[in-house]
Amino acid sequence: MKPVYYEDGLLKLIDQTKLPTEFIVYSYSDYREIARAIVDMIVRGAPAIGVTAAYGVYFGAREYADQPKEVFFSKMKEVTSCLAATRPTAVNLFWAIKRMEDVIEKNKDKDIKAIVKLLEKEAQDICAEDIQMCRDMGQHGAALIHYGDTILTHCNAGSLATADYGTALGVIRAAHDAGKNISVYADETRPFLQGARLTAYELQADGIPVTLITDNMAGWMMKQGKIDGVIVGADRITSNGDVANKIGTYSVSVLAKAHGIPMYVAAPTSTIDFSMKSGDEIVIEERNCREISHICGIQVAPDGVAMENPAFDVTPHQNVTAIITEKGVVYPPYDINIPKLCEKQ
Amino acid sequence: MKPVYYEDGLLKLIDQTKLPTEFIVYSYSDYREIARAIVDMIVRGAPAIGVTAAYGVYFGAREYADQPKEVFFSKMKEVTSCLAATRPTAVNLFWAIKRMEDVIEKNKDKDIKAIVKLLEKEAQDICAEDIQMCRDMGQHGAALIHYGDTILTHCNAGSLATADYGTALGVIRAAHDAGKNISVYADETRPFLQGARLTAYELQADGIPVTLITDNMAGWMMKQGKIDGVIVGADRITSNGDVANKIGTYSVSVLAKAHGIPMYVAAPTSTIDFSMKSGDEIVIEERNCREISHICGIQVAPDGVAMENPAFDVTPHQNVTAIITEKGVVYPPYDINIPKLCEKQ
Repeated sequence: MKPVYYEDGLLKLIDQTKLPTEFIVYSYSDYREIARAIVDMIVRGAPAIGVTAAYGVYFGAREYADQPKEVFFSKMKEVTSCLAATRPTAVNLFWAIKRMEDVIEKNKDKDIKAIVKLLEKEAQDICAEDIQMCRDMGQHGAALIHYGDTILTHCNAGSLATADYGTALGVIRAAHDAGKNISVYADETRPFLQGARLTAYELQADGIPVTLITDNMAGWMMKQGKIDGVIVGADRITSNGDVANKIGTYSVSVLAKAHGIPMYVAAPTSTIDFSMKSGDEIVIEERNCREISHICGIQVAPDGVAMENPAFDVTPHQNVTAIITEKGVVYPPYDINIPKLCEKQ
Repeated sequence: MKPVYYEDGLLKLIDQTKLPTEFIVYSYSDYREIARAIVDMIVRGAPAIGVTAAYGVYFGAREYADQPKEVFFSKMKEVTSCLAATRPTAVNLFWAIKRMEDVIEKNKDKDIKAIVKLLEKEAQDICAEDIQMCRDMGQHGAALIHYGDTILTHCNAGSLATADYGTALGVIRAAHDAGKNISVYADETRPFLQGARLTAYELQADGIPVTLITDNMAGWMMKQGKIDGVIVGADRITSNGDVANKIGTYSVSVLAKAHGIPMYVAAPTSTIDFSMKSGDEIVIEERNCREISHICGIQVAPDGVAMENPAFDVTPHQNVTAIITEKGVVYPPYDINIPKLCEKQ
């Protein structure tokens, strides 16, 4: 299931706000609309946002390809700023935009048509690499899963969050494909219900046994011994191993620790932000509170009630058993072992 | 706000499935319909269910008042069985039915009209006592709240869960009325959204500052130091102090413990079930999974996905800082101090 792909010169996005009851694919060629799609969570999931933004930069370049060179470079700054302003927490967005900007910078002496062509190639590479990274992550992570394990996951770090295959669900897929006879509990993940709408849908489609629960049931399932491990994705990992991920991940990590259950984070090394020493520096996106007060357009809270809607939280590295990347599995101390891993080719 | 009251010979129930967007009051005089209202959660909350069931017994008695005595007694067994079969976890239901049965038993030699009259009086007493108990609980509990505290609550243990005033929210009301300048975080409490629909609504109506969050945000709020204490209600407390309450309470208790935040349970002594030694014996109601897959009638999960929907969980006594009752506050060791408290007149 590819939530973002490039076909016939257009960017295609599955509308993830409509799943699982409607399967709609939109076509894009305007970077502003692509930016809007990221804001509106038509596409979501850190790696998928990165791929989408990369194509956004390419479409911006295509739009200004006939302009004088100076205008082109100045317009490209507008394009990248517009895309970078969509969502603050997932680092892959900025990482992908940076890769595209580097292509422009390195090839600034070439003619614009050549630069545009190279940008198309770079976006395609980012997309292809993402798929390969997820496959590699799956292989590394599957080794941590025991035969018959039941895994809890939160939010959706699956195909629908990446270019394909998934990070956390990539590990689950790889373990399933290896015949490990695993099953999954999926937190529904309020307010956006990515677990109910996307994770349950994806795993069901792949024939991986999945049981949907509300977020507040996770602890009770752990208490009853029904959960052997937790795997989640990440939107940003700081150099000390702190993990920003979907709101609720922190609670799950505390519950897992209290029950002696391993807590794994699966994310490509592009999610690691070496510019930040700890999770305290991460900007947490606050989203519109209507996501809480209204579900699918239906009001469930009284008019005018105060709400908070942080879209992410930060799990301290002390609560993370291991981080699964495309280059291998990292264990604490993360401040030493993450840089060591990232040096690997 | 009285969710259950007796007026003009009819039982009135606020339809709690429609709040906060619609305020509808239904009138009942048939015990079967009253039982149905409990099953369908038109009325919910352990103490409110107890009061409702007591009136249900009275209405059953009224229906069979013209029967021969033998028929009357046999029909009353049907009535109490029907009401007792509505929901398994809240002990107040069985406690209230038992009180009504005791009235029948003790007065079996009187004529039926007199028994019916006594049953009406008993139901009214149960209702009036509930209100008084909540007020007393409020006074005892308010002493535990510090000036400026922010309290997290889960589900609705308010006016709407009792005959009036509330258990957990009764404590919050009393602290507010005492000028303690408190504020409240309300977990929305999936799947039935009692926090969003009822707690936020009640507190807003009383002018007590309340912020609504999704269940999975509670840990993150604690991590940020935004929560000073937790107060919840209870559906059943076993003699060792284990507490059955709305699903998600257990997770909150683990999170509170991990953050060094006190976890208080407010419940009348009628919630204590001395027949059970520990929470392991409590039957946990599994409700229809449609409560998870559909929100206000709108489908949010794929067709045919497996789900679990335990309506309650059990918080072990080790996670409970104190239990607030109408007779006073009990601290551990509960197996010693709960019986001691209950002996008090």
